[in-house]
Amino acid sequence: MKPLNIAILGCGTVGGGVAQILTQQKELLSKRAGREINLKVIAELKPQAAIERFGLDQKFFEHNSIGEILDDPDIDIVIETMGGKSDFVHNTCLEVLKRGKNLVTANKALLAERGADIFQLAADNKLQLGYEAAVCGAIPIIKGIKECFTGDVIESVSGIMNGTSNYILTQMQEKGLDFGAALKLAQENGYAEADPSLDLNGGDASHKLILLLKLAFGLTVSMDELSRTGIQFITKNDMDFAKEINASIKLICFAKLVDNQVYAMVRPMAVKNDNTLSNVNYAVNAVRLDGKYSKTHFLIGKGAGSTETAMSIVSDIVFIARHGEVPAYNEEAKYTLGDSKKLSFPYLISFKTNNLPGTTGVITTAIGNQGINIETVGHNRLDDQNGIADFPIETEECTLEAIEKAVAEIRKLKGDLLIDEPKIIPILH
Amino acid sequence: MKPLNIAILGCGTVGGGVAQILTQQKELLSKRAGREINLKVIAELKPQAAIERFGLDQKFFEHNSIGEILDDPDIDIVIETMGGKSDFVHNTCLEVLKRGKNLVTANKALLAERGADIFQLAADNKLQLGYEAAVCGAIPIIKGIKECFTGDVIESVSGIMNGTSNYILTQMQEKGLDFGAALKLAQENGYAEADPSLDLNGGDASHKLILLLKLAFGLTVSMDELSRTGIQFITKNDMDFAKEINASIKLICFAKLVDNQVYAMVRPMAVKNDNTLSNVNYAVNAVRLDGKYSKTHFLIGKGAGSTETAMSIVSDIVFIARHGEVPAYNEEAKYTLGDSKKLSFPYLISFKTNNLPGTTGVITTAIGNQGINIETVGHNRLDDQNGIADFPIETEECTLEAIEKAVAEIRKLKGDLLIDEPKIIPILH
Repeated sequence: MKPLNIAILGCGTVGGGVAQILTQQKELLSKRAGREINLKVIAELKPQAAIERFGLDQKFFEHNSIGEILDDPDIDIVIETMGGKSDFVHNTCLEVLKRGKNLVTANKALLAERGADIFQLAADNKLQLGYEAAVCGAIPIIKGIKECFTGDVIESVSGIMNGTSNYILTQMQEKGLDFGAALKLAQENGYAEADPSLDLNGGDASHKLILLLKLAFGLTVSMDELSRTGIQFITKNDMDFAKEINASIKLICFAKLVDNQVYAMVRPMAVKNDNTLSNVNYAVNAVRLDGKYSKTHFLIGKGAGSTETAMSIVSDIVFIARHGEVPAYNEEAKYTLGDSKKLSFPYLISFKTNNLPGTTGVITTAIGNQGINIETVGHNRLDDQNGIADFPIETEECTLEAIEKAVAEIRKLKGDLLIDEPKIIPILH
Repeated sequence: MKPLNIAILGCGTVGGGVAQILTQQKELLSKRAGREINLKVIAELKPQAAIERFGLDQKFFEHNSIGEILDDPDIDIVIETMGGKSDFVHNTCLEVLKRGKNLVTANKALLAERGADIFQLAADNKLQLGYEAAVCGAIPIIKGIKECFTGDVIESVSGIMNGTSNYILTQMQEKGLDFGAALKLAQENGYAEADPSLDLNGGDASHKLILLLKLAFGLTVSMDELSRTGIQFITKNDMDFAKEINASIKLICFAKLVDNQVYAMVRPMAVKNDNTLSNVNYAVNAVRLDGKYSKTHFLIGKGAGSTETAMSIVSDIVFIARHGEVPAYNEEAKYTLGDSKKLSFPYLISFKTNNLPGTTGVITTAIGNQGINIETVGHNRLDDQNGIADFPIETEECTLEAIEKAVAEIRKLKGDLLIDEPKIIPILH
């Protein structure tokens, strides 16, 4: 059988890792694939730097313009590791598929925000689109849903899908740091980029959840439609409030099927200590699947990193080699997106107020007026100097919609009471 | 495309569960598979009981002798859920493959002890052999290794693979029960069979590890070759000794690649609390994979149960439907089985001795004579009435071989000192 020829577009952290595995493990991979897996060419703007950084042979960088690669009928699989969702990257991916080549990518932003026509073209042209690496690095959640839990009705997908925010929250929890100090530590240790906004505001996690919503529930959701709250506003006090109810705050991707509606959100949640997710710390990712038949499963592992993500891409290559043409996995689009404000959770609400007599009465009365039962009013972290109260209220199950109404009522009754928006944190058992 | 016709052999807990999912979810499964998935016939000695228990249609039980099923050219996949490793079951599986039908089974004992010719025949005849359900129920570890971590060099596979023993150990740990009481509780709650010996002596876990050794390392290991110790001898005191060093005793399947040798064993280990496996409790199973590139991953879920195991079988059916012919996954047999006595761990050794002066001196001297460093000698649980001492020694890293030599020296020096064999428990970080 003719070798399976690979081209890599972009030889940065991930692309370079792929090149290393493909060259170092060529014999092993070829045996597993049942045919020779041959890295042929790498397109890279700065070839010399890549050669030195990854110890690669000069030969991979000859005749390596994207045009030449697209025109080369010998190339079977193109690995897109340029990143970003620019027109250029988008068009390149489409062109790969138009030329009859399989595509493997780790590009979650592109697939989540502009991926519809890429998925469609791959299906139309009966080509394989590997994107295991786009969701939680080496955790096999894409093949998990497409190939392993196909006998089940998936009822919920949730998890910790952003390593940077999990690293920061873990440092806050374990070392008692405030958000700024923990972010600084993450940047110093290479766990957060210079501009970490997409990690902190839940954008990156949303990309992954959007891909899983499509795969598991057949549901197409845009970034605008997905309810999203980041971790930027979480304070040291909030972490303590969670600790007092035996929980840890984690940035949770959450999707749950209820009566043909899927409720989905990315949001900091207070995860109870007996939930496996609460023990997933630092840059580790975890996905929880709940199936009608197989019940609860967790897949835990490295969500990012050069070799981890590269391994995932290489596995997609071996998969394509072993399986050839596989029908596209299109879960029927039979569900609609529910309004996540109407899904019930117990909540931890963190209030920052002016420290005035009657505050607790106003707030708890407003909450009670919405038919919400209060479990506890937590200990006040008083900032005496500034006259600011900071305290949590734990509610029984209720909706975000009801809590927001209560907050509006508090504002109406006493406009100067609340400092900052209350943080409304679902409690995950 | 013609429907994919399924026959089930044996309509007990698992087979009946498969029949239920195939009938209840027929439309969903057929869409995912890209062709109709059609349960055609069920072979069962007591059809009426099965019909009532699982609410199945009478029609599945017509013309349902195994002979008729084997002769029926319309049957594409046979599901073997009879269980056991008898000649009858073994021959039936071979016959299924000889007739050109794909085989799916949850039968770990058969595949681990008598499976070589079944795997070979499936490969020779280019037929699919699905056995995801044979190892840890619905946890996708078989497809995990065959299809998801194929870009990696697996360096270690370990985990908790027997739900019954994990349930018992968890009850001992959490309720302070002794072994007998915990076993009784497991039997009352349906987590242990009337004859639980294969679960307690590590036999069932060994079957699973043998299948994983073949898949991950290309290594064929027999039950006789695999080092195996069960949980029958673990006492309440042993659980406490582990607790004192921040660990929990778990029955661990363990395999590790070191210098082209694979060291493998099934053995109670004291798992440190910061290892995810230590928090896997009751009947839950967990597999840990360590890869050169993807580092550490955990797959956690239900290791047994009717619908969980049935889901796994149904997923194998959908996989076969989606993929058709896939080359057999044969990891090259380039490693040999190492002598697990020569692999180093820190150890927790639990001694039961006559309570005599000088005991600690004799024992620690003998251990020291083998070049083993002692970390701590634990608190003695004295049984005053019978004059019996019960205490643990925690060692630094050493081999089982060295510890066994030390124990032999203790016996030689003072023949009447030791009551029972010391329990030599590796500590897993």
